[in-house]
Amino acid sequence: MTIEPLEAAFRAAWPIERWADVPIVVGVSGGADSVALLRLIVAVRRASTPLPDGKSDETIIVAHVNHGLRGQSSNDDRDFVLRLSLECQTWCSFLGTALITERFRGRDGLEANCRKARYDFFLEAARKYGARYIAVAHTADDQAETILHHVLRGTGLAGLGGMTMFRAMNDAVTLARPLLGVRRSEIIAYLEAIGQPWREDATNFESTFTRNRLRNELIPQLAREYNADIVPALVRLGEQAREAHDVVEQAARQLADRCVNPSAASDDAAVVIDCTPLVRASRHVVRELFVQIWRDRDWPRQAMGFAEWDALAAIALGEADQTPTRVFPGNVAAKRTGETLELKRRGWE
Amino acid sequence: MTIEPLEAAFRAAWPIERWADVPIVVGVSGGADSVALLRLIVAVRRASTPLPDGKSDETIIVAHVNHGLRGQSSNDDRDFVLRLSLECQTWCSFLGTALITERFRGRDGLEANCRKARYDFFLEAARKYGARYIAVAHTADDQAETILHHVLRGTGLAGLGGMTMFRAMNDAVTLARPLLGVRRSEIIAYLEAIGQPWREDATNFESTFTRNRLRNELIPQLAREYNADIVPALVRLGEQAREAHDVVEQAARQLADRCVNPSAASDDAAVVIDCTPLVRASRHVVRELFVQIWRDRDWPRQAMGFAEWDALAAIALGEADQTPTRVFPGNVAAKRTGETLELKRRGWE
Repeated sequence: MTIEPLEAAFRAAWPIERWADVPIVVGVSGGADSVALLRLIVAVRRASTPLPDGKSDETIIVAHVNHGLRGQSSNDDRDFVLRLSLECQTWCSFLGTALITERFRGRDGLEANCRKARYDFFLEAARKYGARYIAVAHTADDQAETILHHVLRGTGLAGLGGMTMFRAMNDAVTLARPLLGVRRSEIIAYLEAIGQPWREDATNFESTFTRNRLRNELIPQLAREYNADIVPALVRLGEQAREAHDVVEQAARQLADRCVNPSAASDDAAVVIDCTPLVRASRHVVRELFVQIWRDRDWPRQAMGFAEWDALAAIALGEADQTPTRVFPGNVAAKRTGETLELKRRGWE
Repeated sequence: MTIEPLEAAFRAAWPIERWADVPIVVGVSGGADSVALLRLIVAVRRASTPLPDGKSDETIIVAHVNHGLRGQSSNDDRDFVLRLSLECQTWCSFLGTALITERFRGRDGLEANCRKARYDFFLEAARKYGARYIAVAHTADDQAETILHHVLRGTGLAGLGGMTMFRAMNDAVTLARPLLGVRRSEIIAYLEAIGQPWREDATNFESTFTRNRLRNELIPQLAREYNADIVPALVRLGEQAREAHDVVEQAARQLADRCVNPSAASDDAAVVIDCTPLVRASRHVVRELFVQIWRDRDWPRQAMGFAEWDALAAIALGEADQTPTRVFPGNVAAKRTGETLELKRRGWE
């Protein structure tokens, strides 16, 4: 028996020791990527722990959400996943139906809402079956699409990092994307090699959503006209952006150690910053310092954009006109007195 | 007299104090951007230092290169620049002809060769007239094109920074791009407001070169289909990438202070690195440390790519199989002994 190259890549990305015995929810749409993911998980686990005769694997929970957006085709996907799950002898096929109401049918609203419905459902399955992981089938192609989407939207460097292979969803559950380094073409080759069919997702071939237009139009066009290796180029850019952002975050933490004085705060709702050490730091690091303060305090960050973080940096670096107090979104007041900057969330004393 | 908004932006980007009295070479193709640049430089300097009657300004040197690629149209550009230069009472129109030979007519070869010919010519003019600056008319649109080009080619984060507003070309001459924050549309509005005509560059409308295809096809398409503000989004991404890269570079310098031991080197051609402090550093910083060592030593970096820097990081972090010696491009040998890594350029002892 030969081990497929994809199986080797999968084993390297997600060593079996980490998940040999723990329950896993596997998100399976019926498309090539998620069908391959399920087959890989099942194959690797059976190689490690064979199933007794007549038993099914109680720790692999196949989860499928029927958004009901494509009529009979959606139902056929569900039936396909159910059959696949039985063939794989996984214990439970967790089939959900999340109908999306009309008000979410707007371009980004519908897409985002479907995603939220899926993840809520996966988390519910994880809680019910005590799963440690939720495994989803994002590939290097998905990653490249995410990164290009961020480039086009202008979300800046922090957003450019794309998806990570593992991400804690809560204290008990980790989201795993073990195929994130794998090209979609490798997945197709694997499924053909093992004779495993899959369902084509009809919506993938429509260009209704930005994401599908990126996938079906822009990336193929860029590969054709500019760089045949556009997908790995974008993936590498994302990795480098994430690494650089980690360096900036670490520098900001070190800076916080030197300039944030917990004992000087008048009360728990306030942060007192000594601005003297900031002038030798990079402005980028100073902005990140404020992001971290907001995150640590759980102050609302939704309305804080680049302009707001930069305005805080300008005040801290002594560049801003000395307004006695400036109030930022989320009702956080910044007041500079000499070399001291005090941040305080109003109405929360 | 009202000062045009573009003139105010120009004055803010490049304060007159820095160049009030120094000779400047201005690269003028005859296109809108460079015509506006010349008019701005002349207007701002005349406002500061009026010209005596009948005199011309001996410190503004208009430099124009005729690549001879477009026949009569190229000659008309040259004549246009000559007339403009006389109207502006600049002292000298430095007109060059750089015919490009057939062997450089390959896609990128021709473009790169034209650029090199222009900059060599500008530097020659700067030396001849003792100029402190070479001013060129790159705009925010050019910057966005550069950044998108790097995204597509996959040059990674360091290449994503794009062009800087000022860059030392040698000990005596600085390249200045004072219009780097200005949109092309603002330049057109300015020229129309002051009634100054310009030449359309015929090659700009051809899509022969990657750069022109980015400008004339891809960026307008992305603005239409994905984000109307794609140009400022790309410019901001470049700024953030540059800032993040500065933070990484600084971290690498601090790391070098702790782990590069100049006195331990067996001779001047060798660098001795204590690998112990590296394990706590980010891999990105470790790679950048090696880039800096190469740069400081003036070792050849052309053939060193991401894979090579990362292989060095793997050796330094103790991840690589312990090969006694690995030789990198440019004949630099890396040899790890215990916690010590020695780098040595062979044949240069």
